[in-house]
Amino acid sequence: MPSPEEVCRRVLERITPGQAERERVLALAEGIMARLRSLLAEEGLEADVRLEGSLAKDTWLSGEADVDIFVRFRPDVPKRFFKERFLALARRAAEGLKQVERYAEHPYLECLADRVRVNIVPCYAVRPGEWLSATDRTPYHTDFVRSHLDERLKGEVRLLKKFMKGIGTYGAELRVGGFSGYLCELLVLYYGGFLEALRGALKWRKGIVVDISGYYGGREDEARELFRHHLIVVDPVDPGRNTAASVSLEKMCLFMAAAREFLARPREVFFFPPELPVKSDAELAEQIASRGTSLLAIRTRVAGLPPDVLWGQVRRTLRALRGTLKNEGFRVLRMGAWSDEVEECVLIFELESSRLPPVVKHVGPPVWVEEHVERFLAKQMANPALVCGPYIEGDRWVALVRRRWPDAKELLRARLSEGGGRQVGVAPLLAQRVQEYFQVLEGAELISLCRELEGFREWLVEFLVGRPRWLAPAR
Amino acid sequence: MPSPEEVCRRVLERITPGQAERERVLALAEGIMARLRSLLAEEGLEADVRLEGSLAKDTWLSGEADVDIFVRFRPDVPKRFFKERFLALARRAAEGLKQVERYAEHPYLECLADRVRVNIVPCYAVRPGEWLSATDRTPYHTDFVRSHLDERLKGEVRLLKKFMKGIGTYGAELRVGGFSGYLCELLVLYYGGFLEALRGALKWRKGIVVDISGYYGGREDEARELFRHHLIVVDPVDPGRNTAASVSLEKMCLFMAAAREFLARPREVFFFPPELPVKSDAELAEQIASRGTSLLAIRTRVAGLPPDVLWGQVRRTLRALRGTLKNEGFRVLRMGAWSDEVEECVLIFELESSRLPPVVKHVGPPVWVEEHVERFLAKQMANPALVCGPYIEGDRWVALVRRRWPDAKELLRARLSEGGGRQVGVAPLLAQRVQEYFQVLEGAELISLCRELEGFREWLVEFLVGRPRWLAPAR
Repeated sequence: MPSPEEVCRRVLERITPGQAERERVLALAEGIMARLRSLLAEEGLEADVRLEGSLAKDTWLSGEADVDIFVRFRPDVPKRFFKERFLALARRAAEGLKQVERYAEHPYLECLADRVRVNIVPCYAVRPGEWLSATDRTPYHTDFVRSHLDERLKGEVRLLKKFMKGIGTYGAELRVGGFSGYLCELLVLYYGGFLEALRGALKWRKGIVVDISGYYGGREDEARELFRHHLIVVDPVDPGRNTAASVSLEKMCLFMAAAREFLARPREVFFFPPELPVKSDAELAEQIASRGTSLLAIRTRVAGLPPDVLWGQVRRTLRALRGTLKNEGFRVLRMGAWSDEVEECVLIFELESSRLPPVVKHVGPPVWVEEHVERFLAKQMANPALVCGPYIEGDRWVALVRRRWPDAKELLRARLSEGGGRQVGVAPLLAQRVQEYFQVLEGAELISLCRELEGFREWLVEFLVGRPRWLAPAR
Repeated sequence: MPSPEEVCRRVLERITPGQAERERVLALAEGIMARLRSLLAEEGLEADVRLEGSLAKDTWLSGEADVDIFVRFRPDVPKRFFKERFLALARRAAEGLKQVERYAEHPYLECLADRVRVNIVPCYAVRPGEWLSATDRTPYHTDFVRSHLDERLKGEVRLLKKFMKGIGTYGAELRVGGFSGYLCELLVLYYGGFLEALRGALKWRKGIVVDISGYYGGREDEARELFRHHLIVVDPVDPGRNTAASVSLEKMCLFMAAAREFLARPREVFFFPPELPVKSDAELAEQIASRGTSLLAIRTRVAGLPPDVLWGQVRRTLRALRGTLKNEGFRVLRMGAWSDEVEECVLIFELESSRLPPVVKHVGPPVWVEEHVERFLAKQMANPALVCGPYIEGDRWVALVRRRWPDAKELLRARLSEGGGRQVGVAPLLAQRVQEYFQVLEGAELISLCRELEGFREWLVEFLVGRPRWLAPAR
C-alpha cells in the first residue's frame, strides 16, 4: 500500500492547474472585470471590482475553475439598486456567455464560459463587523487566506477540497450540507496541511471548536453556547460567525470516517471515485425486487424554487413524512431525495415493509385519568375494528384494533391528497406543488422514473448501494 | 339501573352464610381442633390451638368456607419440629380427610372436607415485632379485625371479597398478585364500608399510603421510601409490613377500573361473572385464524414446583422471552400463561406477526469510537447478509442486513434448545424443565393444547376476548 504522502503527491499532480489553464481562466476573468469597470465608469458609479474565491486565492482545482467577481459598492447604495441596475450591468459585461440570474441574500449573475462558471456578485465595502450583506465578508476572507497561504499550503488546500468533493462533503449549499472552500482553507491553515487536517478531524467530537484566530481562547464553552453546533470553526474575519454552520452532523461524520479510512488505507479512490456501473431497467427491477425491502417514491414538480429553498423544503418534508410513517408503525430504514433543481423532485423512503400486520395495539390512558378513560372505553367498545380488549396492562387501558393504514403507499397517498400534506408537515412551498401534482410509486414502479428523469437512475443506483465508494472491502 | 346500594343488598343475600352452613363448618372446625388439642396433650406439648382466618372473623363467603386452624407453639420449639412431628400430628387430627402437605415459609397441612378446605398451620406465640415466622402475625390479624368489625362491616367485607373474586383481583398468591382477605378487611375498616372503599380507591395513585393505625401520620414519604410499592397499606399489627405488597400494579389498576365502572354502572356481574361460552375446536381455530395476529405457545412440564415458585418462574420467563422477541424486532401485543399448577404449563405470546420482513437495520457505533467502528466495518464488509451500506446516518455507521430470525417460532425454538433458554433469561427452575421437554406451537396448533390440557380451553377463550366481563358494552 502506498503511503498517504505518496498518494497526495500523485493526486496533487492531477489537480494543480497548469500554466495554460491558469492563463486561460485568468484571461477570461480579467476580460469580464475590465468590461465591468468601464461600464461602471460609464454610468458614473463608484465601485471596486475584485477577483475573489479560489481563483484569487490560487486554491482552485484543475478543470473545475470558478471565477468569482465581486463588485464592492459604497454602503449608501440602496439594496434595490442591486436588483434594478446591477444585474443589467453584469449581463452586459458578460455578453456572449450563457447567463442565469441567481438569488442568495441578493441577486447575482451566474454565467457559463465553456466549462468555467463565472459569478458576478455585488457587495458593500464596509469595515469588518459592520456587514450590510452576507457577501461583504468575502473580500476579507480572500485577503485573510492570501496573506496566510504559502505555495505548499495552496496545494494542501487543493488536496482537501478534492478529497471533500470525492467523498461528497464539499459545498456549503443545503443540498450537500458540507464544507465550503473557505472552510477547507481555514482547516488547512489551522492544522498546517492536508494530512494534518485529516488527523486533526479524527479528534473531533460534537461541539469541537476550531478557533484559528484564538478569539475564544480558554472560553470555548462560550463559543459552544453562542453557536450551538456540532462543528464550530470560528471565522477569523468575523468571530461572531461559524464558518462550519453549513456542515450537517452527517457530513461532519462522513468526513471524519473518510479521514480515518484514508489514513489507514490511503488510495486515490477518495479523490477520484469511480463511476458506478450503469444498470438497465431489468437489472434495476431485479435488484429492487430481490432486495427484500420496500421502496416508496414520491414524485412532484418543483419549478420556481431556488435550490437552497428547495432542499430546505425537501429536508423538512422527508423528516415529517418519516414521522408520519413511523407513527403508523412502519419501520423506515432510510430516506433520500433527488432533484434536478429545476423541475422535478423525488423523495424516497426505504421501509422494512410497506405492508404491516392487520392488528395494532392502542395504548390508552392510565386508569386514574377518569375523563380520558371514559372516552377511550366508549370509543373502543363502539369500535367495529376492535379485536381484543380493552384490557388493563400495567396501569393503562389498552386495546387491540384493526390497523387503519396497513399499506404505506395508501397512507402517503391519502396524506398528500389532503392539502398537499400540509397537515402532516410537508413544508409549505412543497405542499403547494404537491397539491398540484404528485405520484406515489413503489418498488419496480420506480423504474419509470429512471426512464423519465435524467440523472435519477444514477442517483438510485448509488442510493441502493449505500456504501461509500472509498470503503475498502478487504479489511 | 339499580343503585349501588340495591345491588349490594341483593349480592349480600347470596353470599352471607346461613345458619345451617355456619353450624356445619364450625362443627367441622371444632372437631378437628378438639382432636388436635387432645393429641397435643397426649404428647405433652404445650400449644394453643386457635381458629383464624375468615371463619374466625366471620367474613367468609357462603359456599367458599376455608377453615384455618393455627397451632401456636412457644418460641423455644425448634423449626424442624414443625416438619418432623407437627405434620404427623396434624395428619392424625384430620384423619379421614383428603390431605396434602404444603410449604409456605414452613410446612403445613391442607385437607379437603367436602368442598371446605382446612388448613392446619403451626406458628409461634410471640409478641408483636418479635416474629419468628411469617404466620406468627395471623393471630394478631384475627384479633385486630375481630375487635374492629361490627355486624354491618362484616357484610361489607364479604361484598369487597366477592367483588375482588369476581373481577379477578382476590388472592395474595403470585398467580393472582392480588388482594388478601386481610387486606380487604383493612380497606373496609379504613374506608368504613364496601362502596366507601371503592370510592376511596378511585383516588389512589402510584405510591398511595393507606395507614389505618396512623403510624406514619404526616410521614407518608417515609413509608413510601421504606416500602417502595405502588400500593401501601400499613399493617396495623406490624407497621413495618405492607399488607398490599402482594398486589401487582396491574391488579391495583384493575380494581380501580372496576370500582369506577361499578359506581357508574352498578350490576351484579362484577360479583358473579357469567361463564364464557364454550368454544369448539373448529370455532376456536376459526377465531384464531381470522384474528390477524400471531399466537405462539410454549408448552412445558412443571411437576414439583409449588405454585408460588412456579408463577414466579413463569413471570420472569415471560418477561425475558418478550425481551428476546422484541430484541429481534417482533412486536409483542400481549402475553399470558396457563398452568394446572401440577404438571403442565403454557406460556402464550400474541404478536402482531410471527414473521418479519427480511431486512433489518443494524445501527453501529458513532464514527469517533475508533475500535468499535473498525470492528463493525470489518464485520459488515465481510457479512454475506449485507444488503446495503455500511453508510453513515447522523453520527453513526449503520448497515442493512438480512434478518437472522425472521420467524418467531424458529427463534423461540432455537433459544429454548440452548440450555432450556437459560441464556435468554428463562428462569432457572423452568429452564431445567424446558431442557427436558418443550413444544412451541403457533396459531391453530394451539387447538391440540385445548384437547390435551383440561382447563386450557376456557383460559384461552378468555385470553382471546381480553375484555373484563364487567365492562358494559353500551356507554
